[in-house]
Amino acid sequence: KDQYRIAVIAGDGIGKEVMPEGLRVLEAAAKKHRVKLVFDHFDFASYDYYEKHGQMMPDDWKEKIGGHDAIFFGAVGWPAKIPDHISLWGSLIKFRREFDQYVNLRPVRLMPGVPSPLAGRKPGDIDFWVVRENTEGEYSSVGGRMFPDTEREFVTQQSVMTRVGVDRILKFAFELAQSRPKRHLTSATKSNGISITMPYWDERVEAVAKSYPEVKWDKYHIDILTAHFVLHPDWFDVVVGSNLFGDILSDLGPACTGTIGIAPSGNINPEGDFPSVFEPVHGSAPDIAGQGIANPIGMIWSGAMMLEHLGEKQAADSIVKAIERTLEERTLRTRDLGGQADTSACGKGVAEMV
Amino acid sequence: KDQYRIAVIAGDGIGKEVMPEGLRVLEAAAKKHRVKLVFDHFDFASYDYYEKHGQMMPDDWKEKIGGHDAIFFGAVGWPAKIPDHISLWGSLIKFRREFDQYVNLRPVRLMPGVPSPLAGRKPGDIDFWVVRENTEGEYSSVGGRMFPDTEREFVTQQSVMTRVGVDRILKFAFELAQSRPKRHLTSATKSNGISITMPYWDERVEAVAKSYPEVKWDKYHIDILTAHFVLHPDWFDVVVGSNLFGDILSDLGPACTGTIGIAPSGNINPEGDFPSVFEPVHGSAPDIAGQGIANPIGMIWSGAMMLEHLGEKQAADSIVKAIERTLEERTLRTRDLGGQADTSACGKGVAEMV
Ligand SMILES: CC(C)[C@H](C(=O)O)[C@@H](O)C(=O)O
Ligand SMILES: CC(C)[C@H](C(=O)O)[C@@H](O)C(=O)O
Repeated sequence: KDQYRIAVIAGDGIGKEVMPEGLRVLEAAAKKHRVKLVFDHFDFASYDYYEKHGQMMPDDWKEKIGGHDAIFFGAVGWPAKIPDHISLWGSLIKFRREFDQYVNLRPVRLMPGVPSPLAGRKPGDIDFWVVRENTEGEYSSVGGRMFPDTEREFVTQQSVMTRVGVDRILKFAFELAQSRPKRHLTSATKSNGISITMPYWDERVEAVAKSYPEVKWDKYHIDILTAHFVLHPDWFDVVVGSNLFGDILSDLGPACTGTIGIAPSGNINPEGDFPSVFEPVHGSAPDIAGQGIANPIGMIWSGAMMLEHLGEKQAADSIVKAIERTLEERTLRTRDLGGQADTSACGKGVAEMV
Repeated sequence: KDQYRIAVIAGDGIGKEVMPEGLRVLEAAAKKHRVKLVFDHFDFASYDYYEKHGQMMPDDWKEKIGGHDAIFFGAVGWPAKIPDHISLWGSLIKFRREFDQYVNLRPVRLMPGVPSPLAGRKPGDIDFWVVRENTEGEYSSVGGRMFPDTEREFVTQQSVMTRVGVDRILKFAFELAQSRPKRHLTSATKSNGISITMPYWDERVEAVAKSYPEVKWDKYHIDILTAHFVLHPDWFDVVVGSNLFGDILSDLGPACTGTIGIAPSGNINPEGDFPSVFEPVHGSAPDIAGQGIANPIGMIWSGAMMLEHLGEKQAADSIVKAIERTLEERTLRTRDLGGQADTSACGKGVAEMV
C-alpha cells in the first residue's frame, strides 16, 4: 500500500502522555523505511468526551474510524469518575465486538534493562506470545439475577463458546505457532472443573490441530499453567486461551518479565474486514497521570505491532530493536524501571535509535 | 474431645506413598501433645477401587465416612487410565458438594530451604492465605450444547452465585483476616469484563465488609491480581476468590513460593455438620509414582491443617515447625528441592523433629 490511514485515539490519563511518543517513534520509523502513515486524531473514547456529550463515542463512530487501516489507541477509563461498564464497554469492548477483533495478541518477552522478577532469568530466556479469544467466552452478556434482596437471591452468567468463535482463534494460534522456529502451542483449559465449555474447547483444539501436523501442542489446566508461567516460562512458544484465561495469562506473562508497563497488545481482525486496535497493556493510570513520568514503551511497542500487522515488518523490527537499545541505557529508562528519564526523554531516545 | 476418628484415604499414585509419612508425623505429634487419633483406612476414591467395582466409591460412602471427625486424603486421578470427570467428580468434588465443604483453604508461605523463584524474596516475606469458594461459581453443571457438528454449534455453561454461597465464604474470609495481625483482605474480581456475576460478588464483599470494620480490604481484577502475586506477594494477608479464581490463585501462590509440591489444603465445612477433607495440593503424579521419591511435605502439612481444624493448635504448630526445620536440612529434603532424601527419609525427619 502506498499509504496507511491510522485513526489515533489517545483516550484518558497517561494515554494522552504516551501517545505523542508512540507517534514520534512511528514517524521516525516510517521516514527511515519509506512508509507513508497518515494520522487522523479523534477525541472520543475518553472521559472528556463523555463529560461533554453524555456518551463515550458519537453515534457515527463506525463511519468515522471504520475505514482506517488501523487504530492506534492510548488508554481508556477513569474509575473514580466513570464506571468501567460505561467507559470500557462503551469503547474498547465495543471495538472488539463490532469490529470483530477476535484475536488479542500480546508478546511476553524479557527485555534487556528490565530487572526480572523471576530469579536467574535473562533476556532471551522468556519469549512467547499469548493469543486470547477476544469476543465471546466468559465475557458474555447472557445472565441475570433472581429473588433480589432475599435469602434465595442468586445470579447466573453464561459462558458461551461457538464453533466459529473457537475454531478461528485456534486457527490463528496454530498458524502463528507454525511460523515460529519452535512450532509449539500450549492450550489453556480447565476441563476437569468447568465441565461443559472447557471440554468443548479441548475437543476443538484436538480437531484443529489435525491441520497443523508440524506443530507440537500440549494443554494445561489454567491453575497449574499460571504456576508454570512462574516456574518454567521457558516452556512456552504460543499460548492460546479463552477470553478470560487469555486475559489472565496476558497480564501474568508480562508481570513475569518484569512489568506490565511496557507490554503492547493488538486487538486484531485478521481478515482485515475491520481496522484492528493497537494499545499498550497498561491502563490510564490516574495515580500518575499528568506528571509526565509514564513509561511510553508499551505505546511505542504497540506501534511496532501495528506496523507488523500492516505488513511493514522491517519498520516494525527497527522499532523493537530501538526499544531494546533504549532500555539498555539507564538514563533513557523511566523511573518505574529505575531510570531518570521522563516520558518524552524516553520516547525521544527510542526515536533516535530507530 | 478425648479422641478423633480420622478417615484415611490414600487414593492413587503418589497419594499412596506420601500417606504413610503423613500418618507417621500425625502419630508423633499426637503422642507428644497427648491427642488421641484413631485412623480408619478406606480403599475407595482410587483407580484400583474403580477397576474392581466400576465406580469410584461404594453406594454407602456417606455412611462409611460421614461420621468421622475429618478425612485425611492423599491424591486421586490417573488421567491415562480414567477420565477426570469420573475420578475427580466421583470423589473429591462429590465430597466438596455433598459434605458442603464450601471453604477451600490454602496457605501461601515461603519456607526455609525452598529456593524462591521470585528474585530476592526470603522466608517470612510471603505469608498469606487463599480462601476459595468450593461449591458453586464457575464449576456448575448447568449448560449444554446445541446444533452439534454443524457450523452453528455452540456450548454454554453457567456460572452461578447464590447469596448464601457468596456470603458464607466472604464471612469466613473476613473472620480469618480479623484474626490475623495485619487484618487485611483482598478480593479477586473481574467485574469489568464478567459483567453480571462479578459485580454481584463485589456488591456482597461491600455488604459483608460492614460487619468487619477493623478489616481493611481491597479488590483487584483477577488479571492484574495474578501479576501482583508475582511482583508484590508481600501485599497480601487473606485473599478470597470464587471457585475458579480461588483455584488459580491457590496454585499460583504456592508456585510463587517455590513449589506446589509442599503445599497443603483443607476443604472445610466450618459448621462441622460434615467432615472436612485435608489433602496436599499436588495430584497423584503418575510420572513419578512408584519410585518412592515423592515429597511428603504437602501431605504432612495437610495433617497440621487438620489438627488445627480439630482445635489441636499446639500439635498443629509443632508439625509446621518440624517441617521448617526439616526443610533447612539438605539431607532431609527430597530431590525436587535439591536434596537426596527419599519419601520416607523426609517423613521420618519431620517425625523426629516434632
Ligand atoms: C482436581 C480439580 C477439579 C481441582 C479443582 O480445580 O478444583 C484441583 O485443581 C484442585 O484445586 O483441587
Ligand atoms: C478493560 C478490561 C475489560 C480488559 C479485559 O479484561 O479484556 C483488560 O483487562 C484488557 O485485557 O484489555
